[in-house]
Amino acid sequence: MIITLKKTADASEVKALLEDLEGRSLQITQIVGENYDVFGLVGDTASIDERSLLANPIVYNVQRVAQPYKLANRMFHPEDTIVDVCGIPVGGRKIVMIAGPCAVEGKENVCRIAGEVLEAGADMLRGGAYKPRTSPYAFQGMGTEGIECLKAAKDKTGLPIVSELMSIDKLDEFVENVDVIQIGARNMQNFDLLKAVGRTNKPVLLKRGLANTIEEWIMAAEYIMSEGNPNVIFCERGIRTFEKYTRNTLDLSVIPILKERTHLPIIIDPSHAAGDYRLVESLSLAAIAAGADGLIIEVHDDPIHAASDGAQSLKPDKYADLVAKGRAIAKVIGRTL
Amino acid sequence: MIITLKKTADASEVKALLEDLEGRSLQITQIVGENYDVFGLVGDTASIDERSLLANPIVYNVQRVAQPYKLANRMFHPEDTIVDVCGIPVGGRKIVMIAGPCAVEGKENVCRIAGEVLEAGADMLRGGAYKPRTSPYAFQGMGTEGIECLKAAKDKTGLPIVSELMSIDKLDEFVENVDVIQIGARNMQNFDLLKAVGRTNKPVLLKRGLANTIEEWIMAAEYIMSEGNPNVIFCERGIRTFEKYTRNTLDLSVIPILKERTHLPIIIDPSHAAGDYRLVESLSLAAIAAGADGLIIEVHDDPIHAASDGAQSLKPDKYADLVAKGRAIAKVIGRTL
Amino acid sequence: MIITLKKTADASEVKALLEDLEGRSLQITQIVGENYDVFGLVGDTASIDERSLLANPIVYNVQRVAQPYKLANRMFHPEDTIVDVCGIPVGGRKIVMIAGPCAVEGKENVCRIAGEVLEAGADMLRGGAYKPRTSPYAFQGMGTEGIECLKAAKDKTGLPIVSELMSIDKLDEFVENVDVIQIGARNMQNFDLLKAVGRTNKPVLLKRGLANTIEEWIMAAEYIMSEGNPNVIFCERGIRTFEKYTRNTLDLSVIPILKERTHLPIIIDPSHAAGDYRLVESLSLAAIAAGADGLIIEVHDDPIHAASDGAQSLKPDKYADLVAKGRAIAKVIGRTL
Amino acid sequence: MIITLKKTADASEVKALLEDLEGRSLQITQIVGENYDVFGLVGDTASIDERSLLANPIVYNVQRVAQPYKLANRMFHPEDTIVDVCGIPVGGRKIVMIAGPCAVEGKENVCRIAGEVLEAGADMLRGGAYKPRTSPYAFQGMGTEGIECLKAAKDKTGLPIVSELMSIDKLDEFVENVDVIQIGARNMQNFDLLKAVGRTNKPVLLKRGLANTIEEWIMAAEYIMSEGNPNVIFCERGIRTFEKYTRNTLDLSVIPILKERTHLPIIIDPSHAAGDYRLVESLSLAAIAAGADGLIIEVHDDPIHAASDGAQSLKPDKYADLVAKGRAIAKVIGRTL
Repeated sequence: MIITLKKTADASEVKALLEDLEGRSLQITQIVGENYDVFGLVGDTASIDERSLLANPIVYNVQRVAQPYKLANRMFHPEDTIVDVCGIPVGGRKIVMIAGPCAVEGKENVCRIAGEVLEAGADMLRGGAYKPRTSPYAFQGMGTEGIECLKAAKDKTGLPIVSELMSIDKLDEFVENVDVIQIGARNMQNFDLLKAVGRTNKPVLLKRGLANTIEEWIMAAEYIMSEGNPNVIFCERGIRTFEKYTRNTLDLSVIPILKERTHLPIIIDPSHAAGDYRLVESLSLAAIAAGADGLIIEVHDDPIHAASDGAQSLKPDKYADLVAKGRAIAKVIGRTL
Repeated sequence: MIITLKKTADASEVKALLEDLEGRSLQITQIVGENYDVFGLVGDTASIDERSLLANPIVYNVQRVAQPYKLANRMFHPEDTIVDVCGIPVGGRKIVMIAGPCAVEGKENVCRIAGEVLEAGADMLRGGAYKPRTSPYAFQGMGTEGIECLKAAKDKTGLPIVSELMSIDKLDEFVENVDVIQIGARNMQNFDLLKAVGRTNKPVLLKRGLANTIEEWIMAAEYIMSEGNPNVIFCERGIRTFEKYTRNTLDLSVIPILKERTHLPIIIDPSHAAGDYRLVESLSLAAIAAGADGLIIEVHDDPIHAASDGAQSLKPDKYADLVAKGRAIAKVIGRTL
Repeated sequence: MIITLKKTADASEVKALLEDLEGRSLQITQIVGENYDVFGLVGDTASIDERSLLANPIVYNVQRVAQPYKLANRMFHPEDTIVDVCGIPVGGRKIVMIAGPCAVEGKENVCRIAGEVLEAGADMLRGGAYKPRTSPYAFQGMGTEGIECLKAAKDKTGLPIVSELMSIDKLDEFVENVDVIQIGARNMQNFDLLKAVGRTNKPVLLKRGLANTIEEWIMAAEYIMSEGNPNVIFCERGIRTFEKYTRNTLDLSVIPILKERTHLPIIIDPSHAAGDYRLVESLSLAAIAAGADGLIIEVHDDPIHAASDGAQSLKPDKYADLVAKGRAIAKVIGRTL
Repeated sequence: MIITLKKTADASEVKALLEDLEGRSLQITQIVGENYDVFGLVGDTASIDERSLLANPIVYNVQRVAQPYKLANRMFHPEDTIVDVCGIPVGGRKIVMIAGPCAVEGKENVCRIAGEVLEAGADMLRGGAYKPRTSPYAFQGMGTEGIECLKAAKDKTGLPIVSELMSIDKLDEFVENVDVIQIGARNMQNFDLLKAVGRTNKPVLLKRGLANTIEEWIMAAEYIMSEGNPNVIFCERGIRTFEKYTRNTLDLSVIPILKERTHLPIIIDPSHAAGDYRLVESLSLAAIAAGADGLIIEVHDDPIHAASDGAQSLKPDKYADLVAKGRAIAKVIGRTL
């Protein structure tokens, strides 16, 4: 940790600060500059709140040297983590394809779509039983009945289930019935929910918040991991920007960045990023070429009558096209799909 | 609702769309343009998912005319809502001052600070017992013990308590002990939590999410109100932008906008917006001049040793200065403080 | 154009507005809603300033139906535009590779790097002679001498030259010596400069501004085209967001969006977007898979001693790797490189 | 400057880097950490390009201690700069009021509005003769004739003229006829234009770019000052964010920040920030309370028929109201208006 003090700082104030720091068993090295004095602290600085240091009027600046994450940090865990989902490895050579409707709309409906995405090449089934909607007047999901529909679809197709958990009180239901627990973008910093899924050993698909930095996202993974669950899969779904032609701006640079800084798998959700089915194929192929470990894509066989997000849902035949093209790209970059 | 179709749309597809809409008892008016055909829909369009319409390839664009919020909408509720907090009206002529430490650190500590802010002119006490922290390794709050400390401070000073609820399972504790339930920025779209506080009749301080539009924020209020609780107080605390010299960018334009579009009170949190105690007074006075109904400000008598957010905490004497200056401005704009 | 009026509007005020509009030979269709009255205008609405309409207190909202761009609009020009650069088609089946140093540092230097990128597979040479730098104390470019160095490199390698024009007074120098005039991100809305290059027939590489919407970007192309120059090539180089691990956020969704809305080529600059050489390959391959018509990449054989942007420059051997991988992806998507 | 190296760095590479730095007469202090080695550099680090250092694979991070600006820096110029505009001090106790139409529309028109704003309490007249418009099909301003109109209005009212310069080739016209040269938001990083106005001694109103950080903005001032012109006035006009209810988000925190970091005056433009006349008064009073040195506000006596930006223009009587309210606030904070 680097602390920069103003030259105008009173000597006694500087002394008080340094004594305070030395009391915490930190080694301090001073660098005397022309306009500032800089102090480098070595030791367990993780316990120091840099914002408390900034509360001191003599402090000009505080900079951390080390990253604030440990368990997710590749520096301390050089090998890739591969998350096992019912025997399907996420984070390995195979690019994992997750597909299905935005919301579960009924048993017959989700079973039919599950069959279609399976045939098109999907590895897992997605579907929302509990839906976070901006409006209280919009369809809020089928709830427990939706989970039952997903189970029926899994029975029929064998596809593991990915579904979003919005509230701790449904955790048991998810642990029992769902194969990957999705934490949605709006809940990325719902820390109680993160801790709760951290106390299970279910794979967790951790979506990036709409306005969260990559560092905050890794820290959300750290919340889950610090409770004992190492099975975290990152999922980028676009961030909020000023652009109006897309719902969100898909940030594919997260792929090489997360690969360098963490050891966890990263999959991409082009559907929510774009908000427009016409952009999904292009962004999906880009994600594969960029090194993504998987794709989660909304597929519906009647988007015009979908209960939610029809505008961004692909029809099964278009999804099959996308899978075929993605497979060709996967092959030339040394992966499978 | 206005639907714009491409001129290239097939006649039978247009017919199918229109029949679908007419089946929902909507009146449709057509406007034939040069490059597009426009259809205006009148009737109960609230139930139509515009994103399902956009799923139709012949649809070029869908625009809503009316706002998506009803209960919070000033159009249907022209008078200002005044929220009563233990006899203190929020949203009236008096500008309400809420102050206290970021986190509750102990009984003696919070009681002392409560006394100081009372003397400086505060109307209510803020203090976090449950703390949403970016890092799992940072101080997470005292929990139930913290709530007890706040109650002790209320007993001593008479100041009503404002504190943040992070999880539904603590709702009963908050309903019993806290006077204003704060929903934090990170939980603004934690819809289950919004519904839960909507089922109480406690005043709710609803912070704006870091990257949420004003419309989404009003829709979050609508979630609370649609469950039966009309006592919503908006709280702006800065939004996330590219700027690095501040923690967030305080958006004071929300004050006249919310006053025009809704009937609910709006208070400003300059501490979290700025993230720097040196900016708090300037932004506080600005908020009062802009028409805010109140201010929530972090005050600590030893910021250097505060458990969190010392960098943005004012000392009690600085807070007293701010109150005095704010009072002078309140007076010239016809309000009290 | 759709104008929405408040129901509270006075009848005489509505009459005055409608008479004003009818005086402009517009056909008006009224749609009577419950809370609003909506008027659809058909005719030449391009001349109407929607912000003047919004100045009228009875107007609640104004929405344009048609896009504001004409010459760049694919609706009126369905075929792809292919821009010819010294015989190299930009926007065709072949993906065009542009490479070279950020800044021209000397004749020997740029000639050597030009030879290296040619060998690695580049089609054109980039290099800045005039440099837009945030600080007046940073290297500002070699100016005219830099242009001479680029010409020498072209003489040696045959690679056409792409270089940034910052000021109208250098236009003649660029028209005479440079093959593609680059308009940098900071000048995307320097309208006088756009008009000036619009009066030449040189190919123009139009970078997206750091905080410009796609619509504003297309309108900047429209400025160039409306002066008579149809040879516009879009170049995405990342937009400004809250994220701190990258210099900018590369927005690859622009590729399918521009392909749908305009007929102009689009190339991607991953170097400036990422600001970090370690991200360039991943983003480049993503851009190719997404359908980009080309890539402009910073290459330097001694990045540690580069005059600018060393942090984002690839070494020639890494660039050659990237080209080989890009070629393999191009092939499977039916293009060449 | 603080350089952090990875522990995995090869000893010979570290040695090469340090020798390179020592060759520049820098004193280097090493701090040995657990996972990183940190080096503090003292001396003239301004000439070091931190992005060249980052090009070195052994470098993990580079952080500057000192600000990159010198001439604008309050550290080296503690007293407030007061810019004289025809005898009117900008940056002193008096808050300066600038008002007028967005665009000059004719002699009679601007003279009449000038008379109205003078009567309402304005100190200077604003008006655009050259207009930066997003669309090439929108009104582009009257040009030289517009400047003549402004001169006529000055002759009539005595109000100094503030007008936007878009291109260097009009500089002489502006130096001769205009009292404050405005650099618009879109040209904030048009460095050639900044240098050009820096070579005059005219007061320059430097608007913040839509997506520029405060640091970049100060660096733009530094460009002007480094050419010899110390008469720079900052002007905040809102930044681009995701919010859609306002045209831009006004960032009032710039006022205390610029006051602390620089010695230059700062005025606020609420009209362009809000884009809506209904928000202007509220934001103006906020700016005064926050400590702004002036306000620049669009006023038009017939906004519905204004050539541009009618939606954000106040009528003269509303402007007079605003001035009166602003004066009352100015008084209680110890200033005049």
